[in-house]
Amino acid sequence: MSSLMENITAMLENKEMNRLKEVLNQQEHYDLVEFFSELEAQGKRDELAILFRLLNKDLSLVVFEDLSLETQETLIQHLAGNWAVEIITEMEPDDRARLLDEVPAKVAKQLLNSIPADERKKTADLLNYPAETAGRIMTPEYVSLKADMSAEEALERIRSKRKSAETIYVLYVTDAKRRLLGVLSLGDLVTADKASRIRDIMNEKVIKVHTETDQEEAAVLLKERDLLAVPVVDREERLVGIITVDDAMDILEEETTEDIMSKAGLGTLTRQETGRSQRLIEGPVWDVWKVRLPFLVITLIGGMLAGAVIDAYEATLEAIAAVAIFIPVIMDMGGNAGTQSSTIFTRAFVLGHISVKRFGYHLTREAGIGLSMGAMMGLVAGIIASVWQGEPSFGLAVGISLALTMTLATALGFLIPFILVRLGMDQAAGSDPFITTIKDISGLFIYFTFVSIFLGHLM
Amino acid sequence: MSSLMENITAMLENKEMNRLKEVLNQQEHYDLVEFFSELEAQGKRDELAILFRLLNKDLSLVVFEDLSLETQETLIQHLAGNWAVEIITEMEPDDRARLLDEVPAKVAKQLLNSIPADERKKTADLLNYPAETAGRIMTPEYVSLKADMSAEEALERIRSKRKSAETIYVLYVTDAKRRLLGVLSLGDLVTADKASRIRDIMNEKVIKVHTETDQEEAAVLLKERDLLAVPVVDREERLVGIITVDDAMDILEEETTEDIMSKAGLGTLTRQETGRSQRLIEGPVWDVWKVRLPFLVITLIGGMLAGAVIDAYEATLEAIAAVAIFIPVIMDMGGNAGTQSSTIFTRAFVLGHISVKRFGYHLTREAGIGLSMGAMMGLVAGIIASVWQGEPSFGLAVGISLALTMTLATALGFLIPFILVRLGMDQAAGSDPFITTIKDISGLFIYFTFVSIFLGHLM
Repeated sequence: MSSLMENITAMLENKEMNRLKEVLNQQEHYDLVEFFSELEAQGKRDELAILFRLLNKDLSLVVFEDLSLETQETLIQHLAGNWAVEIITEMEPDDRARLLDEVPAKVAKQLLNSIPADERKKTADLLNYPAETAGRIMTPEYVSLKADMSAEEALERIRSKRKSAETIYVLYVTDAKRRLLGVLSLGDLVTADKASRIRDIMNEKVIKVHTETDQEEAAVLLKERDLLAVPVVDREERLVGIITVDDAMDILEEETTEDIMSKAGLGTLTRQETGRSQRLIEGPVWDVWKVRLPFLVITLIGGMLAGAVIDAYEATLEAIAAVAIFIPVIMDMGGNAGTQSSTIFTRAFVLGHISVKRFGYHLTREAGIGLSMGAMMGLVAGIIASVWQGEPSFGLAVGISLALTMTLATALGFLIPFILVRLGMDQAAGSDPFITTIKDISGLFIYFTFVSIFLGHLM
Repeated sequence: MSSLMENITAMLENKEMNRLKEVLNQQEHYDLVEFFSELEAQGKRDELAILFRLLNKDLSLVVFEDLSLETQETLIQHLAGNWAVEIITEMEPDDRARLLDEVPAKVAKQLLNSIPADERKKTADLLNYPAETAGRIMTPEYVSLKADMSAEEALERIRSKRKSAETIYVLYVTDAKRRLLGVLSLGDLVTADKASRIRDIMNEKVIKVHTETDQEEAAVLLKERDLLAVPVVDREERLVGIITVDDAMDILEEETTEDIMSKAGLGTLTRQETGRSQRLIEGPVWDVWKVRLPFLVITLIGGMLAGAVIDAYEATLEAIAAVAIFIPVIMDMGGNAGTQSSTIFTRAFVLGHISVKRFGYHLTREAGIGLSMGAMMGLVAGIIASVWQGEPSFGLAVGISLALTMTLATALGFLIPFILVRLGMDQAAGSDPFITTIKDISGLFIYFTFVSIFLGHLM
């Protein structure tokens, strides 16, 4: 791969265009996809556009389909009008909808208006559904059969539809009003007697989703039930599209990335995961600031509020400066104990191990675990503090407040994401800075309270 | 679903066994899978085993295959010997290998010895490959064709193999020594002329993996190239198994969960994600401690070390107690700025947006972004500190040290995971507590240094 890259880069520098064209068009399509993605990652967009233009029409189309949205967007914006239109016309309607979602609205409109009416309609239909729903991500390119066809007729239809359909392994049976009657696999069809009727070999129990179903829910359904595709129906139960397993895998990765990124306050640049991660690495600094600063501003406010707690106990600090030594222990332990329990909650919730009905039990158990771990850590920290400061009452203050802080942090780490979920908010997004602030403030408050109680005689 | 559950629970309490048996056996297999998983999540293992025993043999087998490993393990340990053996015998060799990996070694050996020799061999072969490799997770149940078969003969073979094979949509062509010659899809076969030879319609360029390929790499390959299955070959290039897309989806989720969990120090209980998350929610407290305490112990050590830095400046604190007020700001800002950059590194690395060769550039850029954000936040915090304490030199100390701490934390958050990757360690696992400790110590050191410089005249 990298030797291909070096060769090509050298030829490009030496402007050996004919040789370059020859070499490029001899490559496997997927190697080109990888190569172009690397160029995009390195920000070499002009080179990317030049090289792409050297590809034969057919090769360029298959390569384009497999590029990331980000790279597709770059190319569309760099290519001359006609070429862009031709490529857009050849794309699958669902891929096209996703790309048009990303390019500037003006460009999208212009492109959409330039493609043939039937293709435009397919994509416009998809774009009418809300973002992140099954309707938006489905493809209308499925194979439907009629119940009174014979197996042989069905196979004939599949042969004729093969090129345009996104999958021929799952086949849907519809009535005259396009309502979904049943499903069968190509395997069922191939192993059935040629003369048998579709209605006799189809399965009437169809697992399906509605156009307004959340895209993640649809993807999880495909995953859980090991399906190759799931049909999407509208409110009148008419079949309008399908979601295939390769799209489901992409959606699951996209949602996971979104969860991970938003936990670190990186969740607002764009819906599209590849794009977002790449922009944070390569994009304009202004974009990066826009994403990263809000989270840090909240952190700053939280840190100042925690500082205000310390300020309130300035007299204590003036009397015994050593009190400040254990501030990091209280803050770090509360922080990490809380991170553990919020991670456990979030994963268990995603995987369906937390039942809302039994949340009281889960929370009590978690708080109990926090208390038990806090007691152990508090004992250790208390002994260290006693010995270090040569003052047993110091050990008592550190130990007890550490145990309580960890109990509280563990319970809050579990409770706050749950409350956010119940309020209909994404359980991951933005919960972290609030949890940090609440943990810091309450931890420091607990600590200084016990310091006042146990070290009062020293002040 | 929940009304089914209530009905069944009521019948079980009233010991209406005949009625219960009837109702259970009328359910769709997937509804039962969901129901049993819920029982497992609630820790109702005895009820689970009783209800499972009431299922008809055929239904029990299909339900069992779709249960989580955790639930399967519970059932195997609760069921009488013969029944367990019968179920194990009917499982796919790869699923069986995964289950036997989880149950206690003694039980696994006993079960393996009780099943027919040919099935035992298939699973034992898989268990010989190292954990988390393609060899361990593949299934030997694929359909292979010979190059000189006609399309019609191939279809005949598929019909006969259909029941035992894990997929019939991707077909592999092998020679007499089982070496992989080519691949074709059922779609290719169905649309080909009946008399055509397999060698003429197969694709000789096969995307494949080796038995020792990492399972995540294999799963990513399936996802990236939109494959329904990928063949696994041994060192002699002989076809020994395949990995199907449904298994790839499970692996990707498992690996993601592992990354997320290990970042919060929850990564050592068991390889199996569903099991781990569930055990943390429902399992014995001893297990939970074992997983969670090590991370907290490291945090405690880190916190104490940070405390030692404060201790070293006790004289400063005794002179100006207000210095302690900004300790939380320095710690929190360094912490969250570092979390952002380590999250960005980890995601970008997973998604392939970071090139090792250009790491110097990435790191410089990231440090620059850290500096720019640190400068902004430092300015704000410095102004607040000046006004709050009525002392401009206080603002200077807070502002400059916050800017430097954030720059350092951002660079370290990016650099440390990279170093761990280069050392061949999982980039997520265990990096967080070290990053926290290094950030705290250096942040506090920077802060107290600037306090000494700018506030020296007040001491």
